[in-house]
Amino acid sequence: MALSVEQASLERNDTGIAKAIAILQERFSNRFSVSKAVCEQHGHTTTWLPNQAPDAVVFAQSTEEVSEIVKICAEHKAPVIAFGTGSSLEGHLNAPVGGISIDLSQMNKVIEVNAEDMDCRVQPGVTRKQLNSDLRDTGLFFPIDPGADASIGGMVATRASGTNAVRYGTMKDVVLGLTVVTASGDVIHTGGRARKSSAGYDLTRLFVGSEGTLGIVTEVTLRLNGQPEAISGGVCPFPDIDSACKAVIATIQCGIPVARIELLSALQVKACNIYSKLDLEEVPTLFLEFHGTPAAVREQSELFGSIAEEFGGSEFKWATQAEERSKLWAARHDAYWASFTLRPGAKGVATDACVPISKLAECVTATVSDVEEAGLLATLVGHVGDGNFHLLVLVDENNQQEIDATEAMIERMNYRAIDMGGTCTGEHGVGQGKPKYLKREHGKALDVMQAVKAALDPDNIMNPGKILPEA
Amino acid sequence: MALSVEQASLERNDTGIAKAIAILQERFSNRFSVSKAVCEQHGHTTTWLPNQAPDAVVFAQSTEEVSEIVKICAEHKAPVIAFGTGSSLEGHLNAPVGGISIDLSQMNKVIEVNAEDMDCRVQPGVTRKQLNSDLRDTGLFFPIDPGADASIGGMVATRASGTNAVRYGTMKDVVLGLTVVTASGDVIHTGGRARKSSAGYDLTRLFVGSEGTLGIVTEVTLRLNGQPEAISGGVCPFPDIDSACKAVIATIQCGIPVARIELLSALQVKACNIYSKLDLEEVPTLFLEFHGTPAAVREQSELFGSIAEEFGGSEFKWATQAEERSKLWAARHDAYWASFTLRPGAKGVATDACVPISKLAECVTATVSDVEEAGLLATLVGHVGDGNFHLLVLVDENNQQEIDATEAMIERMNYRAIDMGGTCTGEHGVGQGKPKYLKREHGKALDVMQAVKAALDPDNIMNPGKILPEA
Repeated sequence: MALSVEQASLERNDTGIAKAIAILQERFSNRFSVSKAVCEQHGHTTTWLPNQAPDAVVFAQSTEEVSEIVKICAEHKAPVIAFGTGSSLEGHLNAPVGGISIDLSQMNKVIEVNAEDMDCRVQPGVTRKQLNSDLRDTGLFFPIDPGADASIGGMVATRASGTNAVRYGTMKDVVLGLTVVTASGDVIHTGGRARKSSAGYDLTRLFVGSEGTLGIVTEVTLRLNGQPEAISGGVCPFPDIDSACKAVIATIQCGIPVARIELLSALQVKACNIYSKLDLEEVPTLFLEFHGTPAAVREQSELFGSIAEEFGGSEFKWATQAEERSKLWAARHDAYWASFTLRPGAKGVATDACVPISKLAECVTATVSDVEEAGLLATLVGHVGDGNFHLLVLVDENNQQEIDATEAMIERMNYRAIDMGGTCTGEHGVGQGKPKYLKREHGKALDVMQAVKAALDPDNIMNPGKILPEA
Repeated sequence: MALSVEQASLERNDTGIAKAIAILQERFSNRFSVSKAVCEQHGHTTTWLPNQAPDAVVFAQSTEEVSEIVKICAEHKAPVIAFGTGSSLEGHLNAPVGGISIDLSQMNKVIEVNAEDMDCRVQPGVTRKQLNSDLRDTGLFFPIDPGADASIGGMVATRASGTNAVRYGTMKDVVLGLTVVTASGDVIHTGGRARKSSAGYDLTRLFVGSEGTLGIVTEVTLRLNGQPEAISGGVCPFPDIDSACKAVIATIQCGIPVARIELLSALQVKACNIYSKLDLEEVPTLFLEFHGTPAAVREQSELFGSIAEEFGGSEFKWATQAEERSKLWAARHDAYWASFTLRPGAKGVATDACVPISKLAECVTATVSDVEEAGLLATLVGHVGDGNFHLLVLVDENNQQEIDATEAMIERMNYRAIDMGGTCTGEHGVGQGKPKYLKREHGKALDVMQAVKAALDPDNIMNPGKILPEA
């Protein structure tokens, strides 16, 4: 199964890589590996892109070690690829021209929690669930929740978001500062702990979303939120996708501060019923959650109720108990895995796009029709309050016709989103899968991105072959 | 009155400037000026930095014209400085090595308002008051409100914020996309209208806060907010600065979503009483505003009331009528001008800093003591919900001793803020006044900023001498 990855002008530097490996082997011995299994585990392991394993993996334990490793690789012009948990979806971890994977999973300490400032500082290997488990007794929580239990470093790299972003923002909004190892191995600190600053270029946000192509993040200062006093939520079925999307648009336009508003296609609901043992009506459904004081939460949900009614939503089914709510949201987070129950043995091709909210109904409806017309099977979920939606296409990887049809449909979906004023990815990132869409989305601004990349990583050793289309 | 401005390695290019002027004069004739008065008006006109006028001013009317002008200047390596309303506070508009000021005030159209997506696209010369006046009938508003009626382009350049930032964010949060003329005169578009994107480097936020040193912003897409259903607010006097700050800290920590929470020192209240004809008790005072549904606003203000009581605040004085509220906030916005009533004829030296909220009481108290010990007269106001505060020092500009004492005190204030984990400027920007603090604040990250600058503006023609300290 072949995907057209644009990396024409990339060239492998065998000599440099071999030299770097020799030095790193000597220095890190038992935290260094060239075993095929370990290397393949550190290449791309999700969705349909081919695995392009690095030549070696080193397990770093501190910023100083990452700096040392990068300095060695920089000297020999060997590529370096940062690795967190391996849950990225667009081939971010592949090593198209080989090189060294720096595994940061052992850098998993929550360094400090400043409850009084509602911030914390963590190492990049801390996962989002680990962080929230650590925070449980502080009254605070970290709201960003991509599907996987990703590492914070990886979430910085892809500018991740998730179900809570409509209320709490994305990684771009919650990262206050970073420690970064640059392409030369220097250690720099960006941002700080003040809530705002006008003191120079916003390097923090330049590194957020740069997918390890400009530097390697070794510490992250994060803004946290207070745990809401009250939470309510539930599910609301709709007669069709269009009505569900229109209810979402009206909810956002009315300024209801929903914490979560998620769309599941009928097929996705069917899959969740099977996988997570739910008994939801198998129609397009919104999952909602409201956060606030008890009075505010009541007010918000009543307002939503009247909007849903207007757009033909059936009665809103409340999950008032924490346990019931957790079950629903666990099912939502497991939607990816649930989809495979619909076609056991199939390969999943995940993709996402994001449009201005007013275009959501049009874009989602057109995409669902396109999937049907192409004779494909795909579930759709969406963080629709942000205009962001995902497709998971279930593909028989031995059927080239199906593969081609999938590629073509995904291409149409991405161009459709871009042409509606949206973007080819709301949260998955570019990796190897989406550089081809960036020209249409960014035009000449791509040259500026390329200039930034060349300035910060002149030898193109930081995660080469990602984000920027090769010439 | 001399301020030490670091621009040692900048050199004036007389020949290039003369050539650019000849071409621009021919091309723009009646929208081009070399008159001394016009040029000085386009140099720095606020606070105490010396005016360094550009050699010429050209009034641009479109993105294409700005591109054309920059191309001419780039060819002859003549500096270009974008001009909005001239309200910046750190010498951002000065032309230390001469060059061409591009006045964007005639580019003042609101191009489109997409009410259904709560966004709009404007030219950079639109001012914040003009925009809100245009938006009045849409149910939407633009929340960022620096003291002056600044232009949106200028607000992008300095990463402006204001009284509403604690609730609605700063320019970094509300700019969705930009049209930028680069140093080579190319026109690029950054960002888009989707609420989030992971499609490549965040150029939008790289340009926000770059003070015209990386490119000139010629269009801005802004996120808007719904006008709140209900607003309430008022003033609350405190026995001392420390108690007022502690009440702010507790308010933020409790997660009360205040829309505005502003501190005025006793001296500032005195000045406002005189200038704006108020009769407030002349003690440290918080100005507050709550936005939301009627029930939410009531709930928030009750919660704040109990916090204020705990920290010794006198009874919260409500301004329930819109007119009364407007008068109070007009007084707050006029605080800068009001201060001069305390020392007629004095020169005002404005500065700001920002610290993590837990350090606010300590930093503000130390700063107020420092002002007194230095024998200076200064009013203090603060967007304290963000940990941001401002000093306006009233200086006799013929008294060198006072000038030196002011410079030294401001230096101590900035280093104090930085050492507390804060920043040397929360919203005014760096300009010519603050490059000297950036080394302590950013360390080696300054090299990365310098690399970005060199990549995007290799001939250093975009607003030279600003932000980055010269070698």
